[in-house]
Amino acid sequence: MPESSAPIRIVLIETSHPGNIGATGRAMKNMSLEQLYLVRPHHFPHADATARAAGADNLLSSAVVCDTLEEAVAGCSLVFGASARIRSLRWPQVDARECGSLAVEHSRQGGEVALVFGRERSGLTNQELALCNYLTHIPSNEAFSSLNVAAAVQLLCYEVMMATRGDQVEQVVTPTDPEEAPARSGELEGLYQHLEKTLIEVGFLYPDNPGQLMRRLRRLYNRAALNHKEVNILRGMLTAIEKRIRDGL
Amino acid sequence: MPESSAPIRIVLIETSHPGNIGATGRAMKNMSLEQLYLVRPHHFPHADATARAAGADNLLSSAVVCDTLEEAVAGCSLVFGASARIRSLRWPQVDARECGSLAVEHSRQGGEVALVFGRERSGLTNQELALCNYLTHIPSNEAFSSLNVAAAVQLLCYEVMMATRGDQVEQVVTPTDPEEAPARSGELEGLYQHLEKTLIEVGFLYPDNPGQLMRRLRRLYNRAALNHKEVNILRGMLTAIEKRIRDGL
Repeated sequence: MPESSAPIRIVLIETSHPGNIGATGRAMKNMSLEQLYLVRPHHFPHADATARAAGADNLLSSAVVCDTLEEAVAGCSLVFGASARIRSLRWPQVDARECGSLAVEHSRQGGEVALVFGRERSGLTNQELALCNYLTHIPSNEAFSSLNVAAAVQLLCYEVMMATRGDQVEQVVTPTDPEEAPARSGELEGLYQHLEKTLIEVGFLYPDNPGQLMRRLRRLYNRAALNHKEVNILRGMLTAIEKRIRDGL
Repeated sequence: MPESSAPIRIVLIETSHPGNIGATGRAMKNMSLEQLYLVRPHHFPHADATARAAGADNLLSSAVVCDTLEEAVAGCSLVFGASARIRSLRWPQVDARECGSLAVEHSRQGGEVALVFGRERSGLTNQELALCNYLTHIPSNEAFSSLNVAAAVQLLCYEVMMATRGDQVEQVVTPTDPEEAPARSGELEGLYQHLEKTLIEVGFLYPDNPGQLMRRLRRLYNRAALNHKEVNILRGMLTAIEKRIRDGL
């Protein structure tokens, strides 16, 4: 029985070497995490994956294979994208240690968390990053900063375990009001689509190019880590605006 | 130029899979460590080692191959043996994080440090443990605690890097773009008043009692820690809504 099987999932996107999937399974199990999601793996199942799992084959056989990242993070209210440090983009960034604390804190409060890892060579696309609340980077040698993907998984899972242990001393009080529970990613998606529709209607966004502004707004609201009730309040605002425009015409 | 090439060496004993040697080289270089010692490696050099090193081949070609552990730790005044937790033995034990701090502190004071990793299957012998000042263990799932050797190297080298950084003055990166500077409280007040006015206009707030909802919205936006540009975007949205309502009437 693992000490902490927190509702924290690991998502690998388009992994090309099956050995990395096996090594990821082993790294997760070493750190008491169990939910592995694979988005379009190049080769899976595969003998190399099983060999490198070294006894964590149960995680491989229960792995969920998905077509899209959206599917893999469905139900998650806090999503971290592992990435080399990006200095130019203003994205909320945390290091591996902060990521571990935030993930454990969020899951203690009843939220589902995903840690997302991109392709071996090219990492995550901007579209994938847009689904993340935070980027998380692992401090490393700036001249040689690209970690093996399973090694990166190992480090983040380790920080999750360290945060779990640290927390056991502190004992966080869980909020009892379900209204105040973290919003799920489906609710957030609904909010963003509603917002985009309203902003096109008032002429603030161009329907053919909502991209950049919507990305900024997503980042802003992701950073606030909205709860269920707040999403409802914001959608209520949007509905009131739409109604006022319709009635006014 | 690595940020910290501390006099901390990594020693692998009788490694059987050359891929693990390569992955160790990569893990070390990622964390700015450079001195690799190999005691009786089964296959070295080897194509698998080079492949998994993924650009850290310079560490492999400068690796020191030794016949004995004594030889590999010669000159070191602080030696850690990586090991699963040993409860019965009365050996000084530290976890990975403490190991990182002790290693960095010792090397700052001019001492040489070695982190020693045993065989893939059987770890370190008692004779080898006797050469260590401390055992260091990595917190893990007690039911599945055996990490891949390169993963264990990755974690300890990471803790060395974190300890190295902790020692340095905490460098806060100041954003250079004034647009991205945190919003001042006057700007935030302006936003909240604009929001309240618009929400009264669309009938979402009652003019005589905007209290509770506005307090929630303030909390939400305060949590997001808006910057200057984001305040402007949100006010732009509100202006577009007001204009659309006015023009529509």
